[in-house]
Amino acid sequence: MTDPHAAPHPLDAAIALELLGDGRFRGAPHPAWANMVGPFGGITAATLLNAVLAHPERLGEPVALTVNFAGALADGPFEIDARAVRTGRSVQHWIVEQRQGGEVASTATVVLAVRRDTWAAAEAAMPVVPPAEAVAVTPRFAKVEWPKRYEMRFHAGPWPDLSVDAELPDSESVVWVRDEPPRPLDAVSLAAICDVFYPRTFRRRQRFVPAGTVTLTTHFHAGAAELAEQGTRPVLGVARGLRYAKGFFDQRAEVWSDAGRLLASSTQSVWFKE
Amino acid sequence: MTDPHAAPHPLDAAIALELLGDGRFRGAPHPAWANMVGPFGGITAATLLNAVLAHPERLGEPVALTVNFAGALADGPFEIDARAVRTGRSVQHWIVEQRQGGEVASTATVVLAVRRDTWAAAEAAMPVVPPAEAVAVTPRFAKVEWPKRYEMRFHAGPWPDLSVDAELPDSESVVWVRDEPPRPLDAVSLAAICDVFYPRTFRRRQRFVPAGTVTLTTHFHAGAAELAEQGTRPVLGVARGLRYAKGFFDQRAEVWSDAGRLLASSTQSVWFKE
Repeated sequence: MTDPHAAPHPLDAAIALELLGDGRFRGAPHPAWANMVGPFGGITAATLLNAVLAHPERLGEPVALTVNFAGALADGPFEIDARAVRTGRSVQHWIVEQRQGGEVASTATVVLAVRRDTWAAAEAAMPVVPPAEAVAVTPRFAKVEWPKRYEMRFHAGPWPDLSVDAELPDSESVVWVRDEPPRPLDAVSLAAICDVFYPRTFRRRQRFVPAGTVTLTTHFHAGAAELAEQGTRPVLGVARGLRYAKGFFDQRAEVWSDAGRLLASSTQSVWFKE
Repeated sequence: MTDPHAAPHPLDAAIALELLGDGRFRGAPHPAWANMVGPFGGITAATLLNAVLAHPERLGEPVALTVNFAGALADGPFEIDARAVRTGRSVQHWIVEQRQGGEVASTATVVLAVRRDTWAAAEAAMPVVPPAEAVAVTPRFAKVEWPKRYEMRFHAGPWPDLSVDAELPDSESVVWVRDEPPRPLDAVSLAAICDVFYPRTFRRRQRFVPAGTVTLTTHFHAGAAELAEQGTRPVLGVARGLRYAKGFFDQRAEVWSDAGRLLASSTQSVWFKE
């Protein structure tokens, strides 16, 4: 049972929005989720999704979310406009715009749907890895704030080893991850977790080069009931880059329940320098 | 050399837009690209991207495109609004809305960028398959119009065999594909090709069940110069589904040059019935 007098979970504190009316919301970056410049992209994704889920016209559950990162947020308030552009019998399409100081900081499109029982099948399979409890918690990466909001247990592809001056041939990370402190999984926390896979250039090159996600797309497979089954137990994240060329690369990720069900698949395009 | 008196290529005829001014365009579905209901999603993706590329404020080349299919287009004119929401030194973010009869039919977000030389690497590898000329052209699938706009040579996972009443364990298709008639590859034709992978439920279940893409995201790796190198030769497309549950599934695709370079990666979420 939740203590109504307890402080909210850091994720809920960060995605909290004040409804101004007519699909407009006000929020502010939360210092607990700071990245090198502006907030962690995953918390922005969760916040924009939260605006749609908190909207009075909302119909159904998240199926897809694309967030475009157009400019870094400064400390201080931002506004979000969420607009249902088309509502069908069971599918609803949204456009979301986040502004700060009159400038667009990010945009999103969201697809919601009332999901129904149908034929079902798995095709992609979770990699065979030891269970979370058999993998040691990886020491937190201390240079930025947001990784402290997660407990991560890297089975492969941990944080870059800055002491090694060598490129790696692949960028794959396989990591058990949960919110810290623990929080029952839902669509907004899953949306954020889909962005915990730091830029794959850091991994390939074992060093930090300026980089930032320009667009992040997540497709949700699990509805509220299936996510609730996962509770606060760690989910398995797997991520890898595909091609790095002329200032951009893409990386794909999958997030699995500990029962081996694909909860979300995600892809992002990332700008990098040098 | 193009004959200025020749009829335009069917792709160019379909994506042609009349600039109404102030970021507004008018177009119409082209009968050569008809799908079961409304036009082929790939041609809608190409048309929305074309609106951005034809816009006077355009900066750079496509990096990412997300198209959300909100409602089927009827025959007759539509309007497209393309709006640059943020323009940086080298990256530009767009929101695009397509309307017909006052209703939103589709939306898109587009990221353009001026690409520069940087560190570069491949990570994903093209599957080892025979070259296009060693794979027979697959007979066209005659039930709908748009597949006639492509020459397809399926190495694996061809059109469903409706005479077989059996589910398949996987949905992968591997296909050499080019425009028919041949047309030099560019970003708009590549955007369309990323949607030639018919719904993976058809493949898994070897039958047609109502299905439609709700959202399609493509990340572009190759700029105009690299795409031009490909010319009119077939590209290799690879696609597979990940998970099918409660009325939606996702499928991922990669499109490779015949030199083995990843030109684009793509993912879509597809609604299905039953």
